[in-house]
Amino acid sequence: MAELLYEGKAKKVFATADPDKVIMYYKDDATAFNGLKKGTIMDKGVMNNTITSFFFDLLAKAGIPHHQLEKLSEREALCVKVKIIPLEVITRNIAAGSLAKKMGVAEGLVLQKPIIELCYKNDELGDPMINDDYPAAFGFATDEQVQQCKALALKIDRILTDFLAERKIRLVDFKLEFGVDKEGRVLLADEITPDTCRFWDWDTNEKLDKDRFRRDLGNVEEAYQEIIRRITGK
Amino acid sequence: MAELLYEGKAKKVFATADPDKVIMYYKDDATAFNGLKKGTIMDKGVMNNTITSFFFDLLAKAGIPHHQLEKLSEREALCVKVKIIPLEVITRNIAAGSLAKKMGVAEGLVLQKPIIELCYKNDELGDPMINDDYPAAFGFATDEQVQQCKALALKIDRILTDFLAERKIRLVDFKLEFGVDKEGRVLLADEITPDTCRFWDWDTNEKLDKDRFRRDLGNVEEAYQEIIRRITGK
Repeated sequence: MAELLYEGKAKKVFATADPDKVIMYYKDDATAFNGLKKGTIMDKGVMNNTITSFFFDLLAKAGIPHHQLEKLSEREALCVKVKIIPLEVITRNIAAGSLAKKMGVAEGLVLQKPIIELCYKNDELGDPMINDDYPAAFGFATDEQVQQCKALALKIDRILTDFLAERKIRLVDFKLEFGVDKEGRVLLADEITPDTCRFWDWDTNEKLDKDRFRRDLGNVEEAYQEIIRRITGK
Repeated sequence: MAELLYEGKAKKVFATADPDKVIMYYKDDATAFNGLKKGTIMDKGVMNNTITSFFFDLLAKAGIPHHQLEKLSEREALCVKVKIIPLEVITRNIAAGSLAKKMGVAEGLVLQKPIIELCYKNDELGDPMINDDYPAAFGFATDEQVQQCKALALKIDRILTDFLAERKIRLVDFKLEFGVDKEGRVLLADEITPDTCRFWDWDTNEKLDKDRFRRDLGNVEEAYQEIIRRITGK
């Protein structure tokens, strides 16, 4: 059995014989509200591995450097070993969730420009919102790394927004994580899935993402399947 | 009696015969925790008018544009009428208060670089933390205005930090507000006082600011007096 390097809420990371490569294993566990709500979404791991692999291929073709090397099996992907930058890089096109509540606006308000928001990835502190100055002020990332992450997030937003619009999906907001490889390059890491994005149907604004789980809306698995159907055409 | 244009927690703003000028009137009312704690600091209005006038003169000499024209009386100052940009521009040199709690570090940690933080000035929403992208995304300020406010805040931080260090005062953090005059220029507005700054004694880290009121440390008035004594030499 390969050595477990890290277990997160939705994935496990295993060592491989190559010290520069790891295996991501996608679980069915679902959590919300910083772990306060827990559950399972059947075959989420299988679906999210498929969705992430699809988006990573799409982004690679558009020149976005990412950590994934190969989808290995239903639930596993081989990836470059990176040191994760402890930032949640959140891009928002439409107000929803915590943003709508915080700013006192209705969910669905189209922002006059995208917002890129940073949270400090730290479960114990509840992933607090920070800004561009914090990482260097506290020494957990450099200003240059922060600007690279933000520039990549904005590019990814444009690529995915256009791609999804053609498939009748609104990209409301999404969370990215980045890692640094042994050469010091910043690579897109983690996943791009209905766990980490808000996807709304273009015509009806029906939620096709983890908000169905968070808010007990039902048809959670069906929403993930619908995303696969629309993006892959299968 | 002049027309009251606006009443805030610590000041009133009155109209004058000149539509482009207003009078700031400094009150003794003290509030904390977004108005949850209320009290009075004796002669705070008199002291804060003195302190703000002193700092604004100092900053003007260093080329910082501000709204104040003249100190009129113990509690009154004549100012250019501006439209306040609804931002709290907070500059932090040392972790204290909400920052220390949020990031799980001890009060007193010297930051590796200053943090400039923005909050959306809105009592009803509790002045939520935002970032550079929000004002243009929600349409309440332009990107250019935000960058002007931040650049001025950083300059002011350097000027005040140096000035205060010579007077054995550590500038831990401070909150600024900015306004736009009728020509569209961004001017420093509001006040610079122990209500809006954290001042610590250089040798003992004794608090010489509103934290004495917030945290019931006693000798509140004496701390404000001590700031006047050290900055004016009187």
